[in-house]
Amino acid sequence: MSTLQSFGDLLDLRHTDAPSVFTTEVDNSWGFAKAINGGVLMSVAARALEVRAADEGLQPHVVALSTVFLSRATPGTLRVETELLRRGRGVSAAQVRITQDEDGQPVERFRALLTLSDLATHAEPVLLQPSPPSMPVPQECVGTPDTAKLRGETDVPLAEHIEQRIDPATAGWARGEPSGQGEIRGWFRFLDDRVVQPADLFFVLDCFPPVAFDLGVMGWAPTLSFTGYVRGIPAPGWIQVRMRTSTAIGGLIEEDVELWDSTGQLVAQSRQLAGIRPPKND
Amino acid sequence: MSTLQSFGDLLDLRHTDAPSVFTTEVDNSWGFAKAINGGVLMSVAARALEVRAADEGLQPHVVALSTVFLSRATPGTLRVETELLRRGRGVSAAQVRITQDEDGQPVERFRALLTLSDLATHAEPVLLQPSPPSMPVPQECVGTPDTAKLRGETDVPLAEHIEQRIDPATAGWARGEPSGQGEIRGWFRFLDDRVVQPADLFFVLDCFPPVAFDLGVMGWAPTLSFTGYVRGIPAPGWIQVRMRTSTAIGGLIEEDVELWDSTGQLVAQSRQLAGIRPPKND
Repeated sequence: MSTLQSFGDLLDLRHTDAPSVFTTEVDNSWGFAKAINGGVLMSVAARALEVRAADEGLQPHVVALSTVFLSRATPGTLRVETELLRRGRGVSAAQVRITQDEDGQPVERFRALLTLSDLATHAEPVLLQPSPPSMPVPQECVGTPDTAKLRGETDVPLAEHIEQRIDPATAGWARGEPSGQGEIRGWFRFLDDRVVQPADLFFVLDCFPPVAFDLGVMGWAPTLSFTGYVRGIPAPGWIQVRMRTSTAIGGLIEEDVELWDSTGQLVAQSRQLAGIRPPKND
Repeated sequence: MSTLQSFGDLLDLRHTDAPSVFTTEVDNSWGFAKAINGGVLMSVAARALEVRAADEGLQPHVVALSTVFLSRATPGTLRVETELLRRGRGVSAAQVRITQDEDGQPVERFRALLTLSDLATHAEPVLLQPSPPSMPVPQECVGTPDTAKLRGETDVPLAEHIEQRIDPATAGWARGEPSGQGEIRGWFRFLDDRVVQPADLFFVLDCFPPVAFDLGVMGWAPTLSFTGYVRGIPAPGWIQVRMRTSTAIGGLIEEDVELWDSTGQLVAQSRQLAGIRPPKND
């Protein structure tokens, strides 16, 4: 395990000569089928902007990030360019692009619009927040290696880095019995016991099996458009996850995710539009 | 009424010498307190990209749009710059910027990331979609001029252009009795009987009173980050609207909107993070 690149290493961005540009290296343990995980790119982008914000005395946290994925990122160097679009008293706005060199030319992988604010000043009052769902403790849930085995698969993306435990009530899809409700619940932690940081939450929001599985639609569900909000600074411990969809029409599915920390505080929400291959009826 | 600029006029974009750049004029009837409505900018951006997509044989509809608002747009000329980021077989991605000249310099108002696809190929099958809520017909709902009057206000933004009818069960906030549930339901139509087009839906998604009103938090709720999805081509007739929030913490609220057409088809969804001024408890 000791030679693996940790999530902390990945997010330890290097400054370049330009104050707006950063780089980091990503190894192939953060990918699947030779593509770097999209959530990794989101957390790298958020972290780069936070580093620049600290350099310039701006608000410390990325509270919103919306992105489109442009081409497949591969193991190697990521070049991260931040552009400040608006500097405000309470909130600032920025764009982040991630490129990789191909034959000496920069090729864009990812572009996102981000909002900076200070989560410490946005913790109180709590007028309304969803309670975490009632579900078994992690030890009584199903590990993703086991759900993969039930589905006859051997490769588990990111299994060396993270632990995911699925509520058995929402894991029927693993044995070919999806509930049809469009909901998957579970637990998340980093295997190296990293305490989840605000910028990490964008990765966590997008690391679970697609919620389409619970509708019986298996296979890869490529993200067309992703938006995540960070609502609080996580306490140490497991992150509780609820993924739901209300709408799967004509090969496009909306997927909503909520994350709670170990104290029951809602710490992040996301919505994405993803492509699915629905079964043919005729 | 006849001298008013219609929504159709607003979205009738003019080509410039550059194939990626368009302009349109917007008059002050589309603003409030001298700022042009943010939803207007979203629909203008979406429509500009659709015109370019038609010119270049790309997918015809904007199915996703995520945006940050950068500065206050004012009545006058909007310059709309489209940039294609990825051309795909089924889906393409683009950025749109809207600028206005100030003292001869372009000042950016708005930047968005958009996804193009073809809604006609994404209509079937319907695996899952939310049913429209049960609510009174528009004639038995409360008009926004009446909700404004109840609140002692005289100006109703956009009242010359659109009709909004609020379900009385979710209009208690207008007489100082918010439900605290975080839900506002209603109906929408253009007063000139324009049939709502896909690109119009971004405007419709963001034109209702803030859902924070139903939590007793009145006042302007500036959008920090907005994401909308178009899921179907609306049939003629009223659009049914449901706005909800699950999470209002520390001056930031998430607001989710769903739109159905007159046949009960879900045609759009959105989520935004907005700023609110919660009442002080101490």
